Amino acid sequence: MAEMQPQYPGLLITFEGGEGCGKSTQVRETAAWLQSRGYEVLTTREPGDTPIGHEIRQLLLSGEYHPVAECELLLFLADRAQHVQQVIIPALARGVIVLCDRYSDSTEAYQLAARQLSEHHPLDALLRFAEQGVRPDLTLWLDLEVQQGLARVRQRALTGESPTRLDEESLAYHQSVRQAFTTIHAHNGARMRRLDAHQSIKAVQGEIQALMTQKLVETGRSHG
Amino acid sequence: MAEMQPQYPGLLITFEGGEGCGKSTQVRETAAWLQSRGYEVLTTREPGDTPIGHEIRQLLLSGEYHPVAECELLLFLADRAQHVQQVIIPALARGVIVLCDRYSDSTEAYQLAARQLSEHHPLDALLRFAEQGVRPDLTLWLDLEVQQGLARVRQRALTGESPTRLDEESLAYHQSVRQAFTTIHAHNGARMRRLDAHQSIKAVQGEIQALMTQKLVETGRSHG
Repeated sequence: MAEMQPQYPGLLITFEGGEGCGKSTQVRETAAWLQSRGYEVLTTREPGDTPIGHEIRQLLLSGEYHPVAECELLLFLADRAQHVQQVIIPALARGVIVLCDRYSDSTEAYQLAARQLSEHHPLDALLRFAEQGVRPDLTLWLDLEVQQGLARVRQRALTGESPTRLDEESLAYHQSVRQAFTTIHAHNGARMRRLDAHQSIKAVQGEIQALMTQKLVETGRSHG
Repeated sequence: MAEMQPQYPGLLITFEGGEGCGKSTQVRETAAWLQSRGYEVLTTREPGDTPIGHEIRQLLLSGEYHPVAECELLLFLADRAQHVQQVIIPALARGVIVLCDRYSDSTEAYQLAARQLSEHHPLDALLRFAEQGVRPDLTLWLDLEVQQGLARVRQRALTGESPTRLDEESLAYHQSVRQAFTTIHAHNGARMRRLDAHQSIKAVQGEIQALMTQKLVETGRSHG
């Protein structure tokens, strides 16, 4: 019942999924829809949405550096710690609905599971340390078949958007990421909802609006 | 007895202590002395002794960014993870004596204890994760009264060496750091040896050589 008695007046909604799943578009559309209904919304993303986070993002994604798996994980967590404390908590405390493009589930899928890091270490404590008590009220997982997602990323590259170091990982890596999201979802069904991202943008957005409406009613925040 | 049966043929010797305690000088003199006796030596330091670590060092120490305590800790650990895997382990595996200017004890003193971070979290697991099993064979703690150390740092600043963001913390912060080293030493007497850094460089170096000679004999590495 913790989810129904939030620590802050705001809500944290995280968007998760593999490459090319349409997260950014859905974050934007969800924000516009919430704003049109009178909610104050903050859209943000990880890694990179603080000044130091911007630099960390460069270290992680530019391809110029070659962090080992442990270093990569700790950099993502360092970025999150700053982001939570300087961006997310102040917004939640003001009652804002925060829409965050990637959060701890991505770290668990990309940096732990798909790199086989968690086999030898109990790493939940690391994830929780970086979160500083801030768990998502709702997580929207945009699930898409891996090759279709990568095809979309390649398509974007033709229009000038550069792929990141993680986009360029092997097919097997991205398949492990999807498998990891499937496992996380299996253990967190109440918080994390799967959306079929093979559907049209409009159909996915419709499902998101239904889930958001339900969450707003459930938590006593409905304006309607 | 783990210390007497090292995992690698090399030895990891860490140098720890507060600002102005003379670590860098003693690392240099110890390296020269070991080399003159025919040992292969690598001197290195944290943070910053890999390409990505150099960038992380800038984020931590330049003063341009303002990492929160959790972010700061995770950045130091990210730097260590890369350093251990890419620099320290390969050298230890080749039988080299690695002299490292700061390691996990500094993180525990500066980032955990003096920031009061460890009161609410069990953070040993984080330190051990970044170390990846690589513990010092011997730690030389150069202990110096805080105001004397800070006076030395100010003196160096007159000769053009810039103080870092951490040098500029409050006197109370540096006193907490010294207290933390005292506590770590109390729990790790076999590994960590206290040296009175109020003495001359030569006197401190004499004690280091005696401790190193003992460690080399103990671990079957004495050339003499």
